Amino acid sequence: MCRWLAYRGAPLRTSELILHPQHSIIAQSLDSPLGAEPVNGDGFGFGWYPQGADDRGPGLFHSIEPAWHDRNLRELTAAVSSPLFFCHVRAAAGPPIQQTNCHPFRYGNWMFMHNGSIAEFGRVKRDLVLEVDPDLYPHIQGTTDSEVLFHLALTLGLRDDPIRAMRAAIGHVEAVGRSHGVTFPWQGTVAVTDGATIWALRYSTQGRSRSLFHSVDVTTLRELYPHEERLDLFSDDAHVVVSEPFNDLPGTFVEVPENTVAVLDSSGYHHQEFHPTPHPVLR
Amino acid sequence: MCRWLAYRGAPLRTSELILHPQHSIIAQSLDSPLGAEPVNGDGFGFGWYPQGADDRGPGLFHSIEPAWHDRNLRELTAAVSSPLFFCHVRAAAGPPIQQTNCHPFRYGNWMFMHNGSIAEFGRVKRDLVLEVDPDLYPHIQGTTDSEVLFHLALTLGLRDDPIRAMRAAIGHVEAVGRSHGVTFPWQGTVAVTDGATIWALRYSTQGRSRSLFHSVDVTTLRELYPHEERLDLFSDDAHVVVSEPFNDLPGTFVEVPENTVAVLDSSGYHHQEFHPTPHPVLR
Amino acid sequence: MCRWLAYRGAPLRTSELILHPQHSIIAQSLDSPLGAEPVNGDGFGFGWYPQGADDRGPGLFHSIEPAWHDRNLRELTAAVSSPLFFCHVRAAAGPPIQQTNCHPFRYGNWMFMHNGSIAEFGRVKRDLVLEVDPDLYPHIQGTTDSEVLFHLALTLGLRDDPIRAMRAAIGHVEAVGRSHGVTFPWQGTVAVTDGATIWALRYSTQGRSRSLFHSVDVTTLRELYPHEERLDLFSDDAHVVVSEPFNDLPGTFVEVPENTVAVLDSSGYHHQEFHPTPHPVLR
Amino acid sequence: MCRWLAYRGAPLRTSELILHPQHSIIAQSLDSPLGAEPVNGDGFGFGWYPQGADDRGPGLFHSIEPAWHDRNLRELTAAVSSPLFFCHVRAAAGPPIQQTNCHPFRYGNWMFMHNGSIAEFGRVKRDLVLEVDPDLYPHIQGTTDSEVLFHLALTLGLRDDPIRAMRAAIGHVEAVGRSHGVTFPWQGTVAVTDGATIWALRYSTQGRSRSLFHSVDVTTLRELYPHEERLDLFSDDAHVVVSEPFNDLPGTFVEVPENTVAVLDSSGYHHQEFHPTPHPVLR
Repeated sequence: MCRWLAYRGAPLRTSELILHPQHSIIAQSLDSPLGAEPVNGDGFGFGWYPQGADDRGPGLFHSIEPAWHDRNLRELTAAVSSPLFFCHVRAAAGPPIQQTNCHPFRYGNWMFMHNGSIAEFGRVKRDLVLEVDPDLYPHIQGTTDSEVLFHLALTLGLRDDPIRAMRAAIGHVEAVGRSHGVTFPWQGTVAVTDGATIWALRYSTQGRSRSLFHSVDVTTLRELYPHEERLDLFSDDAHVVVSEPFNDLPGTFVEVPENTVAVLDSSGYHHQEFHPTPHPVLR
Repeated sequence: MCRWLAYRGAPLRTSELILHPQHSIIAQSLDSPLGAEPVNGDGFGFGWYPQGADDRGPGLFHSIEPAWHDRNLRELTAAVSSPLFFCHVRAAAGPPIQQTNCHPFRYGNWMFMHNGSIAEFGRVKRDLVLEVDPDLYPHIQGTTDSEVLFHLALTLGLRDDPIRAMRAAIGHVEAVGRSHGVTFPWQGTVAVTDGATIWALRYSTQGRSRSLFHSVDVTTLRELYPHEERLDLFSDDAHVVVSEPFNDLPGTFVEVPENTVAVLDSSGYHHQEFHPTPHPVLR
Repeated sequence: MCRWLAYRGAPLRTSELILHPQHSIIAQSLDSPLGAEPVNGDGFGFGWYPQGADDRGPGLFHSIEPAWHDRNLRELTAAVSSPLFFCHVRAAAGPPIQQTNCHPFRYGNWMFMHNGSIAEFGRVKRDLVLEVDPDLYPHIQGTTDSEVLFHLALTLGLRDDPIRAMRAAIGHVEAVGRSHGVTFPWQGTVAVTDGATIWALRYSTQGRSRSLFHSVDVTTLRELYPHEERLDLFSDDAHVVVSEPFNDLPGTFVEVPENTVAVLDSSGYHHQEFHPTPHPVLR
Repeated sequence: MCRWLAYRGAPLRTSELILHPQHSIIAQSLDSPLGAEPVNGDGFGFGWYPQGADDRGPGLFHSIEPAWHDRNLRELTAAVSSPLFFCHVRAAAGPPIQQTNCHPFRYGNWMFMHNGSIAEFGRVKRDLVLEVDPDLYPHIQGTTDSEVLFHLALTLGLRDDPIRAMRAAIGHVEAVGRSHGVTFPWQGTVAVTDGATIWALRYSTQGRSRSLFHSVDVTTLRELYPHEERLDLFSDDAHVVVSEPFNDLPGTFVEVPENTVAVLDSSGYHHQEFHPTPHPVLR
């Protein structure tokens, strides 16, 4: 279900990562060998934070059309430079295919995207939505499990402590799922950001999560490949977290392990174990 | 907020009513003098019951594009003959514009469409949705107040007694609205059908409802206009209920009064008073 | 480049062939093992002739969205019964993805669809278009090579003698291509119909055409599979020609050879050799 | 037929002009009192040159959906700052409504948009297209008269001398129209730019052109309205040319006369008479 890409570093023309690589996320919309489905043609989304001092929050572009031939996406990514951006191509289980079902989702200065699913979502949806803060509830506009999880996490304090909130939100999803007799309620990788830090987690109840990789330090890559001109595009602090590698340069990407939350911030990349809260204390 | 048309009679090529009239509903999408807004370009929908014995239920076609230049709508209505059909062009208060927000809505063999609004919907939505039967809840796919009202009515027994269910549903909307300090919670005209009967109601809390008209008997029209060839298209039992008249032939259309539910069935057209249930007994 | 399906026989609910088979054309939009590309998600089209005596000509439905999750296509095919219909899912070489680039194309009572390409189309397009009858020229609305070939064929007498016109049209494409230094100007399979007969041809300059199959007689299938209930749906004279088989029932489909034009008419299925006219006499 | 806006000045957040004004071009998509049609809901386009030294050429965003509720347009214009940009909302005579029919059109570093029409275009189209340089011909992707005129102008030297090329192109349209018995072949206003200068012309064969206005100098406006804070947004050299005024501040806008080409360049706004070349010398 889907492929995504998250970047953090010096402002970069977004097409350098979204369009130009050999196996870019746009190429992955048509064929993603490491994805649960090879085709991710059920719409796409692109969210980007502005360069420089700007209180505007991230811009968003969503479309229901497949990314592979979309002209607007190519135009926009060529025009936008950003220090932190998300891109997502969707493989939906079924209709509706609509812009409100495209990732990334946004709330205030936060963005969120997901590759995976909440099992038996139709059956558990009402219970999950009931836990969303009533003030946040009208903000839910689509029909995806991902959007509901985002709003659960917001309800559970995402803006104060993202890791704790994601632990509680996924823990809640697992508790509700089990109460409905679902064995493996949660699947997936998630990326969340406030525009300064990116948190990317890889966890599934069954322990067989969708693929997730992070880039090694650019300085390391420059040593590995001193003549690789493409590296000149990137600042030393440039990092990506991606569903699957977008180039074939050995050593560029390292898998993010299961049960992990990776953090990209001004100190670089680091990660720690991630486990949901077994019995989260709700509001 | 929108214009709609409902037909009941002998099977009729649907383009005869949807496309060909002087001031057809397709023309009304671009300019509707009697509408709250002149333009209804935020998508459209067409639902039709099949001819003859058929257990299939109604077909549905929805699009987010304005009706006025839509080729598929013209092709489809020219190809389809139906004894009972609904058509709706939407004027939305705001985004999202998506197929799941197009009317008519369908559940099983039932269809529903609406011109109007639930006031302050963002504030009251959660309370209203909580009253929807949990088994029906996952069926809600859009963000409109109309779709929520439909599911409330289904919860309150629409399939057993439509008038009673609509009285209770709108009564509930008014009660919830008042509890949130909303003075005039409900506005609008609604059409509902099970494929044999059409119920069309015109009621607003404030008493200034969107426009609604019904056609006089075809036999009466034939007497009025013995040389009008267009009337040859229609069976004696043909009736429509419409947001606004689609021709300028004097005497064709009569206004449906405020606080009225009109009924089109095998006995023809008749109507009775309609008032919401003040304090509906919920499930 | 694309997959298509053509049916001729007693009126049949079109979803029986377009939606329900194991490997239906809708499934092929997401994954077509025998196609030049596995994914055919750049829009789709459906054209159908009405049942019974009707001078209306074929109806058409086009959409730019992938067929695999499209609700309107499912609704429409479930509602329409037709004695002769075409369905096409598109894999485009590049943008634009627009309804005017969807097949089948229609002119009067004729429909046309294509899987393949005219090589170096950008270079030869002007020369080809100049040969289109000036009265037909404004009817070209898209940017595809397929639509241009259709109009060339119309110019060269398609409505009088389809096989002769296709021989001349493809011959002309090859002549123009060679004059521009193109080695293999034409590739593909084509289906053309006037609502009574279907002509399906398989020919490429290089001799390695896109796949094409026809169904064996239903009576033969009934003997092969006396207990196969699905065959009860089909009249004895039902035939399809398809880009790739939509079921795994051995013996249902037989390949249409290279250099062949197949004909489906009231006498059943027959085919003959097909070669383009080497030096077609133009108007 | 349509409304448009062109800006030249210091880099400006484009939403300041496209979205925020009282009667913005987005508002004009729903209701344009000075337009030939009140509704311009058949798609829109936005083209913008980048800030600073950049050899990239203008970015383009096109959509077939009405501008009035389009979220992507609002997001994009809020995110983009530009020293020169075009925006256009379309009112089409008829289908197809497709992205290739949206303005502005682009060729290399040039952009072009139009409000008006070539009369009897279906009849004269082939003759006009035949005059387009064969190398430019494949670049035509839509079905509009506007796009054809742009390519005629390119053929006739737009990139060397825009005014001369427009005189010849419109002169050619008039000559071809007259040869087909069309009395008033050309109607409209046009904006053309190379990213440094904007040429805006207002001319119609009949002399009753679509509306066109230009803004007075900002320094003049500051004197007229010393307390008007909105003027703080604009540089002294900021100018717009628009189909209709987007605010009600008296004195902001002055009509561009008939038979005029207006020029916005580094020296400010000036205009001169415009007449087509009666018998243009073609290639």
